[in-house]
Amino acid sequence: MLNQKRLERVNENLERIGLKQTIITDVMAVYYLVGKKLFSGERFLGFLVGSGVKPVLIVNELNRFEEDLGVPVQYYKDGDPLVPIFADKVLHDEVLGVDKNMAAHFLLELMEGNIVKGFANGSLAVDRTRAIKDEEEKEKMRRSSRINDLAMAKFKELIHEGVTEREVASHMPGIYKALGAERQAFAIVAFGENSADPHHMPDDTVIKEGDTVLFDVGCVFEDYNSDMTRTFFYKKYPEPEAERIYNLVKDANEAAEAMLKAGVSLKDVDSAARDIITEGGYGPDFTHRLGHFIGLEVHEYGDVSQANPNLTEAGNIFSIEPGIYHRAIAGVRIEDLVIVTEDGCEVLNSFPKEIEVIG
Amino acid sequence: MLNQKRLERVNENLERIGLKQTIITDVMAVYYLVGKKLFSGERFLGFLVGSGVKPVLIVNELNRFEEDLGVPVQYYKDGDPLVPIFADKVLHDEVLGVDKNMAAHFLLELMEGNIVKGFANGSLAVDRTRAIKDEEEKEKMRRSSRINDLAMAKFKELIHEGVTEREVASHMPGIYKALGAERQAFAIVAFGENSADPHHMPDDTVIKEGDTVLFDVGCVFEDYNSDMTRTFFYKKYPEPEAERIYNLVKDANEAAEAMLKAGVSLKDVDSAARDIITEGGYGPDFTHRLGHFIGLEVHEYGDVSQANPNLTEAGNIFSIEPGIYHRAIAGVRIEDLVIVTEDGCEVLNSFPKEIEVIG
Repeated sequence: MLNQKRLERVNENLERIGLKQTIITDVMAVYYLVGKKLFSGERFLGFLVGSGVKPVLIVNELNRFEEDLGVPVQYYKDGDPLVPIFADKVLHDEVLGVDKNMAAHFLLELMEGNIVKGFANGSLAVDRTRAIKDEEEKEKMRRSSRINDLAMAKFKELIHEGVTEREVASHMPGIYKALGAERQAFAIVAFGENSADPHHMPDDTVIKEGDTVLFDVGCVFEDYNSDMTRTFFYKKYPEPEAERIYNLVKDANEAAEAMLKAGVSLKDVDSAARDIITEGGYGPDFTHRLGHFIGLEVHEYGDVSQANPNLTEAGNIFSIEPGIYHRAIAGVRIEDLVIVTEDGCEVLNSFPKEIEVIG
Repeated sequence: MLNQKRLERVNENLERIGLKQTIITDVMAVYYLVGKKLFSGERFLGFLVGSGVKPVLIVNELNRFEEDLGVPVQYYKDGDPLVPIFADKVLHDEVLGVDKNMAAHFLLELMEGNIVKGFANGSLAVDRTRAIKDEEEKEKMRRSSRINDLAMAKFKELIHEGVTEREVASHMPGIYKALGAERQAFAIVAFGENSADPHHMPDDTVIKEGDTVLFDVGCVFEDYNSDMTRTFFYKKYPEPEAERIYNLVKDANEAAEAMLKAGVSLKDVDSAARDIITEGGYGPDFTHRLGHFIGLEVHEYGDVSQANPNLTEAGNIFSIEPGIYHRAIAGVRIEDLVIVTEDGCEVLNSFPKEIEVIG
């Protein structure tokens, strides 16, 4: 069903980037607005919106559906040209926005029609709207992260003598389902040196005493993604320098969460964590941004990094995931999701962050 | 390594659609030409080719590689605009082709530069080149299909009292790997009424006596895909009308393969199979095209259908997969891959097509 409030916010954000009309073609962006996933494969799917036009969905008749989404639907057949479909719906003397990832051949086809003044990337209007979660979205994000907390407690129980990363990973989808998730979203399982690779994929590495055990995991609950990382130690308390690395990462994570509230620069949030790691002597081993926005997709528009001077807004949800990746000593990452509030933040993960020896 | 012959054929096909230059951005299309998969995620990857330009790869420096591919590479950094990169490489008074599925924001960015006369969809040049396989590709397709034949023999052994579609499907990736495939490409396993749905996904349906057992399966061998369907009967020889349906589908499959050679219309190939099914009274239950082209991707440009009057050419590889989908009687599909030759065709699958009762 059309979410009128979200559509109004998209139209406002569209005005802010100077557009009165745009075609949304991204399936998840359309879902965000009308509540139905209109997968169309290679076929055109479009939702025309904007303050200057009447909203209308353009859908291939092969994907015809019965329910009333609260918005008119115009069906087309394979082979029907796009120009006549849009000619009577757009403002001819205005620029028309299109989704950043729309297939080029659709844009080329629309351009041939000379039905608008020009074309521009209109995605920012939806991206900025999606970056501020409404109450319904916040609640789904909380529940997705709650499942992730419960799952983490189960995952650490999977570690035993002789087990491989791949074997551990193979049990995760079932655990998520049993806890009520729709499905696993992704999973990094990394033992020992592998945890010093932020993008390590589970392989046949066997656990050994003294290893770090890093889980970077997430699930999907009612289409919303969770994402959390914890790093454990197998059978042995870490050596002093590994312990120091762990605590630097933990302090960095907590410092960023402590300074968060609406109106701070995302660059400064990154700095709050990064400075601690840099002062601890491991700056070069924190090789990625502090965090990314998340919601219907694991990586959404917006990042928490030195490159982003924009200010946080209440309702932003993103990850806080500092890490130190030192092959010879330890690879550690600690990650939570947070919701920015007017005067602070709500941390969605409650799984403890203290050093824990498992197995 | 740059495949000079393929590049020459792309340039010739480009001339045929009136273009002297195009940017290839599809990862598999670039791989087809230079032999390396330059995955770039959301970042720009482009291969400028054409009779009017010097070939050059444009690659993000984050994806920098060492080997010499026999073609110059220009690296760019995140944030670098595209226009200056292309400004000194393209013919300014000519149209520039772009890949049909290039992200619209790259096209919008290039359009702002006014560095060419206009833009057009250039994908057909690569698509038409890829539709005619060279000897190296044919050999890989033969080997991929040979594995598929061997796998089919193993798959039918998986059927036993009480088994579900999902359980059968879960063993397939391992069987493919053991037979030397890189991986499974896809798998449809359908019992009984489910085989009357051409796109059925394996579920918890349990096998029962008298069921049809349909396997539509494929694997990847050195990046090339196989695709074959066979339909068996569980424990009981089919009733007369199901037997008739089976033989109509088999006759349709064989009739299309028997009339194939270079220079026949793809529409007529479809008709050769379809007419038999229609004359048998099941025309409305053959609900899809007869076949699709295949190679580096399971579905490539080109189809064998009433909508395609183009002529076959030696080196085309596509599927011949007639089916009759009748829920009350039987769902049957029989599919082979074929290579078109000057005077006939080479059928890549040798697994028998006679009625077989299993279990």
